[in-house]
Amino acid sequence: MSVDLQVQGFSSAAVAAHIRKKDRLDLALIYSEVPANAAGVFTTSKVKAAPVRLGMERLQNGRAQAIMINSGIANACTGAEGMQLARATGKMVADALAIDEELVQVSSTGVIGEQLSADPFAQAMPGLIGKLSAKGLAEVAEAIMTTDLVPKTAVRKVSIAGQAVKLVGIAKGSGMIMPNMATMLGFVLTDAAVAQATLAGMLKIASDQSFNRITVDGDTSTNDTVLLLANGLAGNPVVDDVAVAEKDVLQEALNDLMKDLALQIVRDGEGATKLVTVRVIGAPSDEAAEAAARTIANSPLVKTAFFGEDANWGRIIGALGRSGVEFDADRVDIAFDQVVMVKNGLGQGAEMETLATQVLKKKEFAVNIDLKVGSGAGEIYTCDFSINYVKINADYRS
Amino acid sequence: MSVDLQVQGFSSAAVAAHIRKKDRLDLALIYSEVPANAAGVFTTSKVKAAPVRLGMERLQNGRAQAIMINSGIANACTGAEGMQLARATGKMVADALAIDEELVQVSSTGVIGEQLSADPFAQAMPGLIGKLSAKGLAEVAEAIMTTDLVPKTAVRKVSIAGQAVKLVGIAKGSGMIMPNMATMLGFVLTDAAVAQATLAGMLKIASDQSFNRITVDGDTSTNDTVLLLANGLAGNPVVDDVAVAEKDVLQEALNDLMKDLALQIVRDGEGATKLVTVRVIGAPSDEAAEAAARTIANSPLVKTAFFGEDANWGRIIGALGRSGVEFDADRVDIAFDQVVMVKNGLGQGAEMETLATQVLKKKEFAVNIDLKVGSGAGEIYTCDFSINYVKINADYRS
Repeated sequence: MSVDLQVQGFSSAAVAAHIRKKDRLDLALIYSEVPANAAGVFTTSKVKAAPVRLGMERLQNGRAQAIMINSGIANACTGAEGMQLARATGKMVADALAIDEELVQVSSTGVIGEQLSADPFAQAMPGLIGKLSAKGLAEVAEAIMTTDLVPKTAVRKVSIAGQAVKLVGIAKGSGMIMPNMATMLGFVLTDAAVAQATLAGMLKIASDQSFNRITVDGDTSTNDTVLLLANGLAGNPVVDDVAVAEKDVLQEALNDLMKDLALQIVRDGEGATKLVTVRVIGAPSDEAAEAAARTIANSPLVKTAFFGEDANWGRIIGALGRSGVEFDADRVDIAFDQVVMVKNGLGQGAEMETLATQVLKKKEFAVNIDLKVGSGAGEIYTCDFSINYVKINADYRS
Repeated sequence: MSVDLQVQGFSSAAVAAHIRKKDRLDLALIYSEVPANAAGVFTTSKVKAAPVRLGMERLQNGRAQAIMINSGIANACTGAEGMQLARATGKMVADALAIDEELVQVSSTGVIGEQLSADPFAQAMPGLIGKLSAKGLAEVAEAIMTTDLVPKTAVRKVSIAGQAVKLVGIAKGSGMIMPNMATMLGFVLTDAAVAQATLAGMLKIASDQSFNRITVDGDTSTNDTVLLLANGLAGNPVVDDVAVAEKDVLQEALNDLMKDLALQIVRDGEGATKLVTVRVIGAPSDEAAEAAARTIANSPLVKTAFFGEDANWGRIIGALGRSGVEFDADRVDIAFDQVVMVKNGLGQGAEMETLATQVLKKKEFAVNIDLKVGSGAGEIYTCDFSINYVKINADYRS
């Protein structure tokens, strides 16, 4: 695994800095030996954690060389003190690596509303820098976990104008620390040479098809962050908006890698036992299809029915009805995988329900809905809503 | 109790018609000896059950004299056959009572997608009519229950221009039958004389402050219905838009009665252990305040924290952040009842958290949020999200 995650010019490390709990990996660093072109997507919440605000500001120049990530405390809702801390700890990294502090990205995940102390960062920094290694990314994937049960990694290799390039990604999912927040973090590294102006657009396209298509409980974190660094060491001709064929190859690999990571997050959603694709076609527009799919994918009634393995199409049509999307209830078809339970708004009887129930017993399946209004299509990936979800999230922070 | 629910000119009854289950009250009738002015509010879902569509059509003339309600099957997603059944069963009532069928309202709650049979209605009709009594409304409140644990009733008396008038209401809450839907039904009867044109506006105002302010799980039913019948037998001078003082008295009583019923529904929400008022002030507008309160009140993370009695303000500010409402995270105050946990976006420490945790141990409390942007205010009533909610809704329909 650790061999696979190597990319030219990138080294990584993680250590136990004892930020909130003792003796677990909670501080990580990713470093590129040359400044990389960089792009980011961040939480759409009005409440943005200090590292998110700092990261957005610094990415305006489209360059990054290091990413430091801590778990334990999110540095969200921490006011001016929190912003100062983000800058100060970022400067520690810049000084230790002798790089411009504007090239350091800082990410945090953990409890909201508590202040980070600079001390554990200062004490851990020499060890962290000393441990940097081409094989270190696997440990970073562990260090950023919160209630995640498994680390999430993905690798893709493609050829750009005859030159082999590699993309690796790691992510953490929708876990609450102690249990206080649901942060999604993703970091994608590539040795591909990509023009900065092109990189941000590519990341947006891939995000819209991956991380922006998943839901565990409909909540958005203050710290959601995805960063993409391309250091160009593969030596391929620079991919830009003119090199259409090359860009398509790289875009497809990026989309594929990020969707892989996104689905890993849903499979490992808190308490999740099933991965469900909610697919809507025949909508007035793609946006309407996505909105309809999202309403279904977030409905507690639908999600508890998935957990109960109940092919309860009444709840699906109920969620559709309140989604705000235009359709005629008397024309809707609903299928579980290929088992059509509803045709033109009418249930198809006990035999189809028996077949559909078999589909729901699977670990992964799709709900396919045809509104027959237009040609809009969209899908959302969700998980079921289990007793364990409530248990995990009702436990007092401790 | 049954004495209290009597209103001049109204009689009611409920019987076991064996519509889906044997030997439980599942068919009810409310009858006014004179045609009443009537108004209704119905589900905003695009998927409207047959009785809802029929009821909306018939209320265009602003009059009603009888309401028949069945539980067991919702007559939703039942196509032309379902609409025909709604009309046919309504006509049975009209014929038996010798009234115009246009004056009969039909309501259904229960499983979606199954067809009702006319037979149990036909067989039960003579017994239902024969049982009509001034004291019958308490049994109607029982007959419309699904997973409700207790019947919901309320009574208010006011004086209109020196004349005593009475309002009574019954409701059923957010329960799933078998467990297939969450329908909210409410029926309010008064002997007050109220102009038809005035009545609909009064019902809308009262609904917006009561039933439209509650949430159990954010799902809207295909069958939600609230009907208000005013038969005028109190003999008060007719309340209309000109009689401002009298209208205010009646409006206040109606608001109060309907909020009483609405809060009874939340207290009896599926698996609920707590009634929580989420109150937002200082918002850009009343609509924005309501939207912010609604996002918080529907957040699974916030609701599981309520269940866990965890004063987890990070989740509240997280939900606020994704509500789409404009505010500055560094100015927000959050209090549990009077215990201020967050001031200008910053947590107020362990001592306040200890006090706030005491508030969360109560059966009923408020979350008070001041955005300090404008003068908009609004509140939503919600319940917690418990392990029992998942258990109730993951059980297979049977």
